[in-house]
Amino acid sequence: MSISGKIINDPVYGFIRFPEPELMVVVEHPWFQRLRHIKQMGMAHLVYPGATHTRFHHSLGACHLMGKALDELKLKDIAHSKEEYISARLAILLHDIGHGPFSHALEHSLVEGVNHETLSSLIIQRLNVQLNGLLNTALQVFDHAYPRQYLHQLVSSQLDVDRMDYLNRDSFYTGVSEGVIGYDRILQMLTVKNNELMVEEKAVQSVEKFIIARRLMYWQVYLHKTVLGAEQLLVNILKRAKELAKAGYALFATPALHYFLYRQLSLNDFITTPSNLDLFCTLDDSDIWASIKVWATQDDVILSRLCSMIMERNLYKTILTSESVENLEEEKRKKLKNKWGYTDHELNYFVCSGSTSNHTYNMQDEKITIALKNGNSCDISQIDNTLINQTLARPVHKNYICYVHS
Amino acid sequence: MSISGKIINDPVYGFIRFPEPELMVVVEHPWFQRLRHIKQMGMAHLVYPGATHTRFHHSLGACHLMGKALDELKLKDIAHSKEEYISARLAILLHDIGHGPFSHALEHSLVEGVNHETLSSLIIQRLNVQLNGLLNTALQVFDHAYPRQYLHQLVSSQLDVDRMDYLNRDSFYTGVSEGVIGYDRILQMLTVKNNELMVEEKAVQSVEKFIIARRLMYWQVYLHKTVLGAEQLLVNILKRAKELAKAGYALFATPALHYFLYRQLSLNDFITTPSNLDLFCTLDDSDIWASIKVWATQDDVILSRLCSMIMERNLYKTILTSESVENLEEEKRKKLKNKWGYTDHELNYFVCSGSTSNHTYNMQDEKITIALKNGNSCDISQIDNTLINQTLARPVHKNYICYVHS
Amino acid sequence: MSISGKIINDPVYGFIRFPEPELMVVVEHPWFQRLRHIKQMGMAHLVYPGATHTRFHHSLGACHLMGKALDELKLKDIAHSKEEYISARLAILLHDIGHGPFSHALEHSLVEGVNHETLSSLIIQRLNVQLNGLLNTALQVFDHAYPRQYLHQLVSSQLDVDRMDYLNRDSFYTGVSEGVIGYDRILQMLTVKNNELMVEEKAVQSVEKFIIARRLMYWQVYLHKTVLGAEQLLVNILKRAKELAKAGYALFATPALHYFLYRQLSLNDFITTPSNLDLFCTLDDSDIWASIKVWATQDDVILSRLCSMIMERNLYKTILTSESVENLEEEKRKKLKNKWGYTDHELNYFVCSGSTSNHTYNMQDEKITIALKNGNSCDISQIDNTLINQTLARPVHKNYICYVHS
Amino acid sequence: MSISGKIINDPVYGFIRFPEPELMVVVEHPWFQRLRHIKQMGMAHLVYPGATHTRFHHSLGACHLMGKALDELKLKDIAHSKEEYISARLAILLHDIGHGPFSHALEHSLVEGVNHETLSSLIIQRLNVQLNGLLNTALQVFDHAYPRQYLHQLVSSQLDVDRMDYLNRDSFYTGVSEGVIGYDRILQMLTVKNNELMVEEKAVQSVEKFIIARRLMYWQVYLHKTVLGAEQLLVNILKRAKELAKAGYALFATPALHYFLYRQLSLNDFITTPSNLDLFCTLDDSDIWASIKVWATQDDVILSRLCSMIMERNLYKTILTSESVENLEEEKRKKLKNKWGYTDHELNYFVCSGSTSNHTYNMQDEKITIALKNGNSCDISQIDNTLINQTLARPVHKNYICYVHS
Repeated sequence: MSISGKIINDPVYGFIRFPEPELMVVVEHPWFQRLRHIKQMGMAHLVYPGATHTRFHHSLGACHLMGKALDELKLKDIAHSKEEYISARLAILLHDIGHGPFSHALEHSLVEGVNHETLSSLIIQRLNVQLNGLLNTALQVFDHAYPRQYLHQLVSSQLDVDRMDYLNRDSFYTGVSEGVIGYDRILQMLTVKNNELMVEEKAVQSVEKFIIARRLMYWQVYLHKTVLGAEQLLVNILKRAKELAKAGYALFATPALHYFLYRQLSLNDFITTPSNLDLFCTLDDSDIWASIKVWATQDDVILSRLCSMIMERNLYKTILTSESVENLEEEKRKKLKNKWGYTDHELNYFVCSGSTSNHTYNMQDEKITIALKNGNSCDISQIDNTLINQTLARPVHKNYICYVHS
Repeated sequence: MSISGKIINDPVYGFIRFPEPELMVVVEHPWFQRLRHIKQMGMAHLVYPGATHTRFHHSLGACHLMGKALDELKLKDIAHSKEEYISARLAILLHDIGHGPFSHALEHSLVEGVNHETLSSLIIQRLNVQLNGLLNTALQVFDHAYPRQYLHQLVSSQLDVDRMDYLNRDSFYTGVSEGVIGYDRILQMLTVKNNELMVEEKAVQSVEKFIIARRLMYWQVYLHKTVLGAEQLLVNILKRAKELAKAGYALFATPALHYFLYRQLSLNDFITTPSNLDLFCTLDDSDIWASIKVWATQDDVILSRLCSMIMERNLYKTILTSESVENLEEEKRKKLKNKWGYTDHELNYFVCSGSTSNHTYNMQDEKITIALKNGNSCDISQIDNTLINQTLARPVHKNYICYVHS
Repeated sequence: MSISGKIINDPVYGFIRFPEPELMVVVEHPWFQRLRHIKQMGMAHLVYPGATHTRFHHSLGACHLMGKALDELKLKDIAHSKEEYISARLAILLHDIGHGPFSHALEHSLVEGVNHETLSSLIIQRLNVQLNGLLNTALQVFDHAYPRQYLHQLVSSQLDVDRMDYLNRDSFYTGVSEGVIGYDRILQMLTVKNNELMVEEKAVQSVEKFIIARRLMYWQVYLHKTVLGAEQLLVNILKRAKELAKAGYALFATPALHYFLYRQLSLNDFITTPSNLDLFCTLDDSDIWASIKVWATQDDVILSRLCSMIMERNLYKTILTSESVENLEEEKRKKLKNKWGYTDHELNYFVCSGSTSNHTYNMQDEKITIALKNGNSCDISQIDNTLINQTLARPVHKNYICYVHS
Repeated sequence: MSISGKIINDPVYGFIRFPEPELMVVVEHPWFQRLRHIKQMGMAHLVYPGATHTRFHHSLGACHLMGKALDELKLKDIAHSKEEYISARLAILLHDIGHGPFSHALEHSLVEGVNHETLSSLIIQRLNVQLNGLLNTALQVFDHAYPRQYLHQLVSSQLDVDRMDYLNRDSFYTGVSEGVIGYDRILQMLTVKNNELMVEEKAVQSVEKFIIARRLMYWQVYLHKTVLGAEQLLVNILKRAKELAKAGYALFATPALHYFLYRQLSLNDFITTPSNLDLFCTLDDSDIWASIKVWATQDDVILSRLCSMIMERNLYKTILTSESVENLEEEKRKKLKNKWGYTDHELNYFVCSGSTSNHTYNMQDEKITIALKNGNSCDISQIDNTLINQTLARPVHKNYICYVHS
């Protein structure tokens, strides 16, 4: 950080300030610095070469927006104690601390059955011990246990500062200008009633636009078929490596990655053996990438082929469709089998399928509430002439198939 | 790349096109793909967290500008054959292919005495063999051996598309808006006379602004004292690792890095043994970073301390000054020695100094020539009321000292 | 225009070129130059002070986008003759030539019963005579009479270059970043089948975003209640002035404005007496504003009060609502009447109401057709999981009331 | 202004706030609202069609920067009373209130011998009476009479918020991206010592860049030869109109313009007869433009020809050069005389010359002082390796000639 560790030049927002020493203690901690080496958008840079930004930068940006949100609320006489202000900032600063290498792409590959939010909570707890309780309140906000519940909504809901930052930032770094949202207008229109976060009625169009921008970013960028294919390839590489490890095959790996490859850790292992958490906190993209480059020359033909593919950007051909891909999958497998003689199990690494879904607006999740001019409030889907109706509230499911050309 | 491998969404320029299959063959080669994992600005992201962009992206951007430059020249009836057009694009596309991990930061650490331009030329030659002579003309342009010499000037001079791209791109990703240059206006004003690249007189102010923007980026960003300190730290880490390697100490390293750590290669080794070049072409930032994280837990206290420092962003304190730093260095060494009992040799890793210099405009380098309205031409420093006079043509030397707090 | 009359520096798109002499002949014509003095967004600058851009600039921008659209089609082997290319550019360049002072704000005030499209067509015809038939084809394109019908669709439909330019430009100049659209992506995805303009399926999200951006701009900017109030005030000023003129009251006015104030021209008058058209083509914002400033000191208390209000930005209080405003209007009139003793007729100038409506997507208008991957095509509202469904295709009606504080 | 009169959407800075009622009283005054109809850049929109922004918008922007500057000083413990804060904001808000139609273009045409700063001071005084002394302190700041002298330096010096706003704003609206300056960095580096405004040493490069950006904007934009020619044409139109008025010729004009055309007012007339000032405060661009359009059809062939020229953008051919234009002028006059038989006096309207000059850095004006790291301070031209040396401190003189083709 430039200028005495407190002002950062963020191309998205301009100069942003972190005057609170409590924040800088966390920012300078090696576990947080680690986020500098974890790409925000996984393998999306293979399609959008500008998208090399990191979880570190996103976390700082979201923390900046939290400060702005609380400043706006203060102008509306919704004031917070200094501790609340700092703790809300700490909670969002740390919200992604549990992400592993390549963010979502490997979320369920490296450590199965434990999502990044759970790891974030565990890491915040462990950090809190190191920092002598500095994060007590932040942890409550993060875990939705703090009495002023709207602070948690600012950290995690369908209109949180996390989404506001990542939509803007991902737009900026990918060059997909359509994801840009009017975050400043939305922040200005935030309010709190009955301990609930709301948006003033006159910002309905801005919120609609925010939701549509997210919808667009999902289908056009995050679930771009080539990105999806690249991330499946990465997932399959890890899967094969773990399979070989389990079979006793000696694989090169950085020591920390080696530990996770050759063990099958559960949530409980992280809770009962904190050193597992410490080791997790040393992993970043470089452990994976440096190992993949070695694996490309390894004996196992499946692993080496998959690794060469990703290094040469010779990715799976991917189809994303609302129709079934079952028949196509069968056909592709048959062709490949005939040609190369792979076993059915081995074929899984060269033809795979799955499904994905996205809500434009999720009625079951933390809702977006509108504070009406007449003093009442309602869900955004209840507003007159709203865009966000029952249709959009239904999730959209799509199937995908990834395969190599035979 | 999105949209069938030929259109890229570049946040700096918008959509850019690579319709030529000759270019795509190079872009898809693993040696070029490797540039995706080499940060354009080395360790500058420790000060400017947005600066995670890569040599890959810069190379594509510069190639785009080369296309625009040639298009503008064509409007002025300076036409090129298709082969010239493509070869000029190929030359700039490959101009940075010889960069190793962290770009300039480790340029003279990993392979001593061989700069990246020399390696680029060797790699282009080797690639040319693989590609059956596709790069014959590009290589001539790159090596300043092609008859139309201004094509080389577009690749490498004081007003080349390399600088135009990196100034704009580094500005964009650091958020230092002051580095933005009016590249489109300059491109429009390019012309060629007597086989020499020139700028029309009415663009003098734009060129002045370009030179001043570069001057600003050097002193404010590239030579930012904290960036300088971080890169010295990286250099010292490699130095120590090589020292330990030479002494027979067993260090963890990725196989490729291990090869270079435990050998002292000269230029000749690259020329006579092409496999050295091939191995070099597998190295990227991840080899270094993944190894540094392991070294931080290694036995050698000096190496482990240096690595912990960079991981925790606990960097050298750095002073950059036009005065001598000799006395200060002596004093700092004495203090540290008393406190920790390091030997004189070991102290070099915790107190080091050096000097750096930059020309605002270099009279000895490829000059910037102005095509005057009256039909004559002259060096930009000869123009009436120009900014670029003798004073600015003198190099500015500065000394720096990096040290740890005792 | 800078740089020899052919390159313009447009802050929205960068440098844009007009190399065709046929276009420059039109641009330099005083009727077209007149558009420099007609604000694109009428009185919106009273709310968005940056919105002082003009019909002139918008027309150039739309003409630039037309060129880009045709260039993209050419890449898809939908080529045009030079005459078609230029005529499509001419048609869009002239599409707003029929706008009078303050664009839409006074569209039905100065000349009743004649909309700006009709006037544009008449003026293009008259210009065509002056220019010896240069506009023959352009006129056909404009009037939807040219065989290649999609050229007209590019000029005027729900996805025309007119809308693409004004959404982007109005966003830029108002600072309402939410109106920004990915025009370059949409242009790249345009195609033509069976003489019909279509968009490729993979751009559906971009088109959705375009439609939502327009929806947002309508409700947030174009129909901003204060803008609406300011434009009603302007309408009422003209209405009162015409009323006084009809009653023989001697009003100051510029000669051209005087002519239109003291006459009640119909469409037929423009057709049969071309000099009426010529005179119309000398009117711009300055005629109205210069006169309003004088009227503010005129004897008639109603006219002078209305004019003072607009000069001091002491605008109507305006309510825009989906409910009826009838009762409120009655109440406001009663209050004002009691206080000031105005007649019922006079009260109309201080309390007025009306309704406005907007289609997010209009099923009756020129539709947006999607070229599906499977070779078929369909309306955008038929697409799977589309945003643009029956609900959004229904127009939204709102009532407004404008009144002065009593 | 949107959102209850206190927040403005400025495309240059985003949302800017004017929470102080004292400021809003001034903003809503008709004399200030008048600035909405005075173009910031005179006739520059004939070259840069985007440059239609107004003195109104610039004044708001500069006022915003003043607030930011004072906020930054406060972080450095240079605090101000609420009255000082508001008065400094009022002083800059009103600094251009004395501008007449087309800003600088007609500054010495309409009222000879009285510059706009003098008029601003007189108008602020008169406004102060109306507002019961609200502007007492602001007036002192404006007139350099307030004890904290650096407040005046922020309003008017070589590094004032006026220049910071207009460089950025003019860049934005013209599209000349090279004028963009890093105003936020400069504001952050401002400090005050011994009652003098200074910039911290580490911002030297940013200040250099600011000075070079201004230099570029002068020579490339403000003194663009076509702009210069267009403004000379405007000046000559007013000159001819006044000449005809003096000779008793009956010219159409709006009443306010008529008053100034048919009288020769001196500074004293404004001081002794305040109603002259009041009338001046009703003039804006529309009075001039509406009259010019009528004059184009007037009997006087000289006036009508000049007015047609500006309406049809058939401007003078202009040459700007460091050489003498005397011979060329003689030659052009002779040619025209032969062809049209104009008298020598009449010829002045079709061939005219003059000179203009600009300091890159003016040693005689309010200097830019650098606060050195070692505690001392010095002029920016004294800094080691500075750009701003004696050469640049010399004014650059150029001659111009404007003429019509014969």
